Amino acid sequence: MNLNETHDPARRSWVADANDPAGDFPIQNLPFAVFRDAHGAVARGGVAIGSSIVDLATLRACSPFEGLAAEALDAAAESTLNRLMGMGQPAWSALRLALSRALAEGSPLREAVETALVPQSGATFQVPAHIGDYTDMYTSVHHATNIGRLFRPDNPLMPNFKWLPVGYHGRASSIDVSGQRFRRPVGQTMPPGADKPSFGPCKRLDYEFEIGIWMGTGNTLGEPVAIDAADEHVFGLCLLNDWSARDIQAWEYQPLGPFLSKSFATTISPWIVTLEALEPYRVPWTRPDEDPAPLPYLESEDNRSRGGIDLTIEAWLQTSEEREAGAEGHRLSHSTFAHSYWSVAQMIAHHTVGGCNLQPGDLIGSGTQSGPGEGEAAAMIELTQGGKNPVTLADGITRTFLEDGDTVVFKGWCEREGRVRIGFGLCEGTVLPAREL
Amino acid sequence: MNLNETHDPARRSWVADANDPAGDFPIQNLPFAVFRDAHGAVARGGVAIGSSIVDLATLRACSPFEGLAAEALDAAAESTLNRLMGMGQPAWSALRLALSRALAEGSPLREAVETALVPQSGATFQVPAHIGDYTDMYTSVHHATNIGRLFRPDNPLMPNFKWLPVGYHGRASSIDVSGQRFRRPVGQTMPPGADKPSFGPCKRLDYEFEIGIWMGTGNTLGEPVAIDAADEHVFGLCLLNDWSARDIQAWEYQPLGPFLSKSFATTISPWIVTLEALEPYRVPWTRPDEDPAPLPYLESEDNRSRGGIDLTIEAWLQTSEEREAGAEGHRLSHSTFAHSYWSVAQMIAHHTVGGCNLQPGDLIGSGTQSGPGEGEAAAMIELTQGGKNPVTLADGITRTFLEDGDTVVFKGWCEREGRVRIGFGLCEGTVLPAREL
Repeated sequence: MNLNETHDPARRSWVADANDPAGDFPIQNLPFAVFRDAHGAVARGGVAIGSSIVDLATLRACSPFEGLAAEALDAAAESTLNRLMGMGQPAWSALRLALSRALAEGSPLREAVETALVPQSGATFQVPAHIGDYTDMYTSVHHATNIGRLFRPDNPLMPNFKWLPVGYHGRASSIDVSGQRFRRPVGQTMPPGADKPSFGPCKRLDYEFEIGIWMGTGNTLGEPVAIDAADEHVFGLCLLNDWSARDIQAWEYQPLGPFLSKSFATTISPWIVTLEALEPYRVPWTRPDEDPAPLPYLESEDNRSRGGIDLTIEAWLQTSEEREAGAEGHRLSHSTFAHSYWSVAQMIAHHTVGGCNLQPGDLIGSGTQSGPGEGEAAAMIELTQGGKNPVTLADGITRTFLEDGDTVVFKGWCEREGRVRIGFGLCEGTVLPAREL
Repeated sequence: MNLNETHDPARRSWVADANDPAGDFPIQNLPFAVFRDAHGAVARGGVAIGSSIVDLATLRACSPFEGLAAEALDAAAESTLNRLMGMGQPAWSALRLALSRALAEGSPLREAVETALVPQSGATFQVPAHIGDYTDMYTSVHHATNIGRLFRPDNPLMPNFKWLPVGYHGRASSIDVSGQRFRRPVGQTMPPGADKPSFGPCKRLDYEFEIGIWMGTGNTLGEPVAIDAADEHVFGLCLLNDWSARDIQAWEYQPLGPFLSKSFATTISPWIVTLEALEPYRVPWTRPDEDPAPLPYLESEDNRSRGGIDLTIEAWLQTSEEREAGAEGHRLSHSTFAHSYWSVAQMIAHHTVGGCNLQPGDLIGSGTQSGPGEGEAAAMIELTQGGKNPVTLADGITRTFLEDGDTVVFKGWCEREGRVRIGFGLCEGTVLPAREL
């Protein structure tokens, strides 16, 4: 990796608004998405710079790069990023370095790249890769304890939690990008004290703030990925809203796990921030001294020293009136991915240890990233103690769970003194009324 | 549907061995697969007839059909069947009728079709569609009770079982066709009485006999499929082995369900028998009088009168020595899909009721199809009461769970007096030793 050069805080772009220190998309970020421009041209890969997108299909036509960077640009210009993801870290790094140089002040490629700039404001985004399989994990000890207390008061944290990153398979077909508007789900629930289930719209609709992990190179069935090789298999991260129907979940989830309570919608942010761009925000991965040491396949020096990522996350709620009025809404919670009990590398080492094969474009949700403190709960069910204590949004407006018309907005960014801010953009989704029954 | 004509027991094929009354693939069956011939040509769709395959890519070049049948043939000749699956019941029926007529004795198309015949013996098969999402269900009350007793002695059958078809998401990437050879999985287990988990090869490796349901036309996110429309969305059925690592499962599955214990391998039979071909084997769907009536979205007259399918299933085990010697091995169990507590239509109505979208080529496992009687348990863990009572295969050969080198073979067929036998072919998979640790 060309860390020093592509992360150099002194590097500035000739795209003026990319140099805004409060912006999400400086030249040190360069995240990937798949988009259509305002004229509805065929979907193609793009890279964010300031408030613009480098249209990679247009750029490719100028043949600005050579060697591996040119090969990677060919793949990145396609309508899904799967081929780029499968090319591996050297290709991703070569393309990142070439783009960083081309977008830097004084670049001789400025004229060519300028013709490929498209405003983000007019673009529509789509899921950036064909998702072969979607896995959802459960890596926040705070979330697991908080929610476990509600579902199983006597036994909140399962005995396996501190030994392995718990995960389960999720639904890929219902994943869409930011802007997703979905109907409140309908289903069976068992009301407290009832002797038979009810049928109707979900009454306890919730969000869950997660980090999405996009797989780059995969592994062959039966050949695990070792923990120290795991990061090289990861293309990058996004924000992910694992919308959850709590009342449907409580009734259906025994004994095989959540099913329809999670498969009516899942929203991701369109931009994939590469692990390379997040390199300056690596932090040690730690666990309390009293907790058991991980088994050898989940343990490494490298993981101890830099397994965590200090990524700030925030969840906001806008009522439909606020959204129409252009108001920002209310911050519900904030936390950091650094609190995760298990690291990205540990999730991948565990996922593959039994032989399961991952493929380029697979998506792994980190699990709800609640932190230890008050206001760090990354779901309504935790913030309201199971719906008992409503959250006050503003004068006279409270919520226990989500109401029709509500929009949930996630924001995520890395920021630290002396380093350039790396942002993720937004992950927004809106609840529509249930279908008529 | 042209039931009378395509099911007519009197219709015979000019492909002589298709008229064998004990064969799997008479002219009344006509299942679909994707294969390569012995010369390794590009993968394409095929239809079984006797011991041969109609190579649909070769047939298509002769333009033997017209109208909708010709359009369906174009799609069926591709290297995955997804496009055919998405065309819907009228297209499937038109192609089936055209093929049935072309293969019937006296057909004027005989000469053209004859050039497209390939022996099954030299062909290699592949997964016949791109599987967008794989769902595994849990619809046998006998399996749920038997296995529930082992995992939760006090609470074998969960209270939701008789109210909804329990399901969960499974792993699509590790699914392969009959002939799959996979390494014994490795992972964490918690031995009884231990205070910390062990790591190593699975010691309780099992099979599960399921029926695979291939989705044809899908549904839009948020728009459920009503129970009476559900069968029209189903392209057909296959046999499915949901290999399971019981010791890994017991430790990992709380609270979110099976994960690595099921994602190291899943084997399906290559042939998809269409629902239309199974029409003569429809039977009433019933439940015990004392059980609750299904909620309205899971109930219909049509489902009561013909929701079941009388499909005989058998599981066989061959040791590596027996397999090398060409011996048939030992029948472990036999049952029928007609025992299923929930019908195919109910599974689909439930899967989509909350808004989840199904897509052409999605695969749904029926769950382990154990029957009520002795010898009708469709997994080793049930046959051996959790490994306590070994099964005797032959002189001196016993099994509690699967050993390295063991091959499990599933067979499935429908047969009844006065109707033509409809077979599924074989679903075989072999356990290889675990990787070295």
